[in-house]
Amino acid sequence: MKNRLLPRDALICAMTRGAEGPEPPRFDADFLNLLDELFRWRRDVRRFSAAPVDGAALDELVALAALAPSVGHSQPWRFVAVESEALRKEVIADFERCNAAALASYESEMAALYARLKLAGLREAPIHLAVFCDIETQAGRGLGRATMPETLCYSVVGAIQNLALAARARGLGVGWVSILDPLKIAAILDVPGAWRLVAYLCIGYPQEEHLDPELERHGWQARLPGILQRR
Amino acid sequence: MKNRLLPRDALICAMTRGAEGPEPPRFDADFLNLLDELFRWRRDVRRFSAAPVDGAALDELVALAALAPSVGHSQPWRFVAVESEALRKEVIADFERCNAAALASYESEMAALYARLKLAGLREAPIHLAVFCDIETQAGRGLGRATMPETLCYSVVGAIQNLALAARARGLGVGWVSILDPLKIAAILDVPGAWRLVAYLCIGYPQEEHLDPELERHGWQARLPGILQRR
Repeated sequence: MKNRLLPRDALICAMTRGAEGPEPPRFDADFLNLLDELFRWRRDVRRFSAAPVDGAALDELVALAALAPSVGHSQPWRFVAVESEALRKEVIADFERCNAAALASYESEMAALYARLKLAGLREAPIHLAVFCDIETQAGRGLGRATMPETLCYSVVGAIQNLALAARARGLGVGWVSILDPLKIAAILDVPGAWRLVAYLCIGYPQEEHLDPELERHGWQARLPGILQRR
Repeated sequence: MKNRLLPRDALICAMTRGAEGPEPPRFDADFLNLLDELFRWRRDVRRFSAAPVDGAALDELVALAALAPSVGHSQPWRFVAVESEALRKEVIADFERCNAAALASYESEMAALYARLKLAGLREAPIHLAVFCDIETQAGRGLGRATMPETLCYSVVGAIQNLALAARARGLGVGWVSILDPLKIAAILDVPGAWRLVAYLCIGYPQEEHLDPELERHGWQARLPGILQRR
């Protein structure tokens, strides 16, 4: 992955700018190298330090998330910062219920290993951010999602990936908690009925930084070879 | 969004590295500025130039995509490069069928506007890449997706967002075509029954670069103010 610059000269010849508007930035080799490193180091985080996060950071991350493309330009992402201790406790209780049920579904050694895994940092993370998709939004007027309505929620996932990369580049860790009952979380947070939970994120400074995913390090699942087929 | 560096000193104090493994890179202010610009300039592309794309680029992009985190480290992404002209024609025919049905669902002025929009670059794009989710993968052993099984496909979307950002940084454009019958595309490409289509991507050098989304520029849908609520 070291020598992977594409022929930019071909690009320059092939492309003209939009008639108006600013000139696109040059993403040079140094940037590309660091971007690749960012993908590598953007791992799910469940072990947070107690260090507080600057209050403006969340607004900034949400703004960057909202730059993601979306189907029909529908921008269906809805962000809810969960600050109330009482609400956080209800979320944590739901996680513990769902996690106990998940543990019960594994047997013997797998159950023992599962029980040792740290699967969420809900108690420690300074920021809790629930991310919803408004599945009844009129924005975009339905364009692009008649045959694949799931692309509406997929657009929200793209925004979350932006947020996670932007956070990691700023030294923050993001943990995506999915061991939750999504309807229960929506009820706890009292959001509109059309808002579907896509992700519940923990955000904060990580205790440790690792290049290998938590589940790889603890022997749950190894990395697989990539699959690119040709037809 | 100019003065948005987080207090890195706090971070350095709060964090220790993993016991072994390499040191994480420093993402400095220049990198953060360019990363923000990358989010801004990563727009869906439907107007491709005829310039060929280096053969190694696709392997590289797929490898970067596969660095994304995934639920239970399940790595459910499956990539199929569609190179056969005959298969591409079948895909284009399906797009045209679905797009005609979509057009028929709009009335009067909206229909006229819809008809003028360019919604895919399937004919011009040098690379067609179908991205699937293996919904029966045993990898990850079901961890994290008992209550939210959709997170398996969401993991694939995260990988696609990596791919799109990496492509844009290299001067390549990516267009996500969702006006397709996903079962029909799976049948055309003869993939295993458990592979669910997440995205059909067109990749190539863009004819023009814009900061504003195509649908915004052509008056279909304006940008909305971000929504961050607090509870």
